[in-house]
Amino acid sequence: MQDFQYQVPTQVFFGQGAEKEVGQRVKEFGGHRVLLHFGSRHSKQSGLIDRIAGYLHEQGIETVELGGVQPNPRLSLVYRGIELCRREKVDFILAVGGGSVIDSAKAIALGVPYEGDVWDFFTRKQKVERLLALGAVVTMPAAGSEVAVGSVITNEDGMQKIPLNNRKMRPLFAVLDPLLTLSLPPYQTACGIADIFSHVMENYFSRTRNTELGDRLCEACMKTLIHNGRILMESPGDVAARSEIMWAASLAQSGLLSAGRQGDWGSHDIENELSAVYDVAHGAGLAVVFPGWMKHVFETDIQVFVRFATRVWDLDPSQFPDERALALEGIGRLSEFFTRLGLPSTLAGLGVPADQLDMLAERAVRNGGTGQFMRLSKEDVLSILKNCAQ
Amino acid sequence: MQDFQYQVPTQVFFGQGAEKEVGQRVKEFGGHRVLLHFGSRHSKQSGLIDRIAGYLHEQGIETVELGGVQPNPRLSLVYRGIELCRREKVDFILAVGGGSVIDSAKAIALGVPYEGDVWDFFTRKQKVERLLALGAVVTMPAAGSEVAVGSVITNEDGMQKIPLNNRKMRPLFAVLDPLLTLSLPPYQTACGIADIFSHVMENYFSRTRNTELGDRLCEACMKTLIHNGRILMESPGDVAARSEIMWAASLAQSGLLSAGRQGDWGSHDIENELSAVYDVAHGAGLAVVFPGWMKHVFETDIQVFVRFATRVWDLDPSQFPDERALALEGIGRLSEFFTRLGLPSTLAGLGVPADQLDMLAERAVRNGGTGQFMRLSKEDVLSILKNCAQ
Repeated sequence: MQDFQYQVPTQVFFGQGAEKEVGQRVKEFGGHRVLLHFGSRHSKQSGLIDRIAGYLHEQGIETVELGGVQPNPRLSLVYRGIELCRREKVDFILAVGGGSVIDSAKAIALGVPYEGDVWDFFTRKQKVERLLALGAVVTMPAAGSEVAVGSVITNEDGMQKIPLNNRKMRPLFAVLDPLLTLSLPPYQTACGIADIFSHVMENYFSRTRNTELGDRLCEACMKTLIHNGRILMESPGDVAARSEIMWAASLAQSGLLSAGRQGDWGSHDIENELSAVYDVAHGAGLAVVFPGWMKHVFETDIQVFVRFATRVWDLDPSQFPDERALALEGIGRLSEFFTRLGLPSTLAGLGVPADQLDMLAERAVRNGGTGQFMRLSKEDVLSILKNCAQ
Repeated sequence: MQDFQYQVPTQVFFGQGAEKEVGQRVKEFGGHRVLLHFGSRHSKQSGLIDRIAGYLHEQGIETVELGGVQPNPRLSLVYRGIELCRREKVDFILAVGGGSVIDSAKAIALGVPYEGDVWDFFTRKQKVERLLALGAVVTMPAAGSEVAVGSVITNEDGMQKIPLNNRKMRPLFAVLDPLLTLSLPPYQTACGIADIFSHVMENYFSRTRNTELGDRLCEACMKTLIHNGRILMESPGDVAARSEIMWAASLAQSGLLSAGRQGDWGSHDIENELSAVYDVAHGAGLAVVFPGWMKHVFETDIQVFVRFATRVWDLDPSQFPDERALALEGIGRLSEFFTRLGLPSTLAGLGVPADQLDMLAERAVRNGGTGQFMRLSKEDVLSILKNCAQ
């Protein structure tokens, strides 16, 4: 185990109907004039934003609204949000949505008290010091941004998608109401599950040794995602299964699974390029990239993949000629799981042209390589992308 | 899953040698004049307390010392600590020890700013409002008090052992340095493991349904404890195993395993009476009581015990004539594990006289019964204690 620090400062309020208490929550955390930040027209048309505004108004809290956050949230909207918060003297930002909305809200919260260009934080020109107060109402369990330290913003100028991680960027509170996820379409549900699963795997596939408790916590999350993911494909209205997925999404990014170990995050870096250039849905991109990454790296430390095959997929080693075959079957089971969720399994299925792999590989390693389980060169990434093309 | 709130506000610093940074930690958290609170002569004689004092002095922090905390920490010492803190104008309490020391420190921190008798909080005459700032350096992984909401104090007047839980009672930080646990004698190591295992089981054996992720997180902890507990009995100097146990102790009481479910805690209530009256080591008491409790209740909800047998002890259902036999074998494996750790398996082994069971049962249910998995009457507790006598 490596040395680590651990804390989950975000106050999580989990429950069916927890939505209704959001006015009290904002009041407890000191909000008087709130920016409601959200994404799709759906949030507005479904009446959710009006309901949330109502709960705030009941507590004497004023609101201004900024919708329109897209998947792979854009810097241009962040700039608009910062300007709006300053003009309207907003003292609290409430994100209502999934990871994109929360990430966008974090960037706005970072930009409001800073005199320069908020992009400076993402390009590491400026250190994170303070943020406007921030809370989240989660409508899509996936990114776990509601308890996480990170925000990933896409700068349309050059289509750069850059993650920024800092512990000060965690929301003060997160409302997790599984009832809000019942109306998610199957494809979005599936993308969310692939995203959560990938967060677990980025920690699980590690070179750090003596991490038994961490390994087993990861396996607990993956088995829960497999079981409840399958349930939701048959019964999208199963609130119990929705609850498991929602709680797993937050825990996976809470710091619990990364404690004491070096994660990989190479697949995320590669997928970020697909999203940045072709606006691929993040979860769908990960469902394609991760098995491709696994096939490229598994033989460099096969025991971790043997453990994945036996503990996560319950495969019986005695049924396989050797560890290689066992490990490959584990990877195959993962691909099959993603496919059954209705996710694409190839770059073509994501709409990524086959003749652009060199450019994508070049971008993924522009900071001098990526990944920790195996440090990936441009050639490695190209080979992974070719695995994903088949 | 039930509605829940979740937060781990205590900042955990985990690492080999983390001890050395305790001066900086106290400084960061605002301590200027610190009470070093500790237990056995061992802490003093081993030089640990002097080392810790040295780290604080290097940061310009003044110290006063109060040792002598016993297992089942006493109210009389809490009173002395409160008086000492007031007289010496202490602004920060640093507990250096295991659960008893940290519980004692919490009670002192509660009493210093309160004008009345600190016991009022334990008898529910007074609501917890504020505490003196508090940190912990853990030397014995067991109670998890370093991240937990509770303190259990024994009032020698009537030998009442009463737990108090309040989220304000969590330490500001906890230093977890596995090197500090290397010198623990095997019996204390074993008592700690039994205590941690019991905290997991109090959550695991629940009537709440649809708790898959929580169930699996509990199983992850139990399997880690079994594997590493066995290692430590052979190789007490195995730092990797010590690290796993130490991290499991904190996580088990961090709120992670109780989220969304109703725990039981009947075995703890029963054991608290053994500790209060006969000064039994808490972990040893739990190792005796828990299997006795299981044998009494398992048939009222056998599926939970079947899951325990198959998932925690890897038993193959096809090898057993029926679920009852399978469940009983799971309970047997637990007893065997505790015995191999060198812990007693009967009340006699704890030094509890066989003719006092009626009195103990009476005390355990004095608030009108105990336990949630099955609500226990005096007759139930008596039957459990008789299971423990064999």
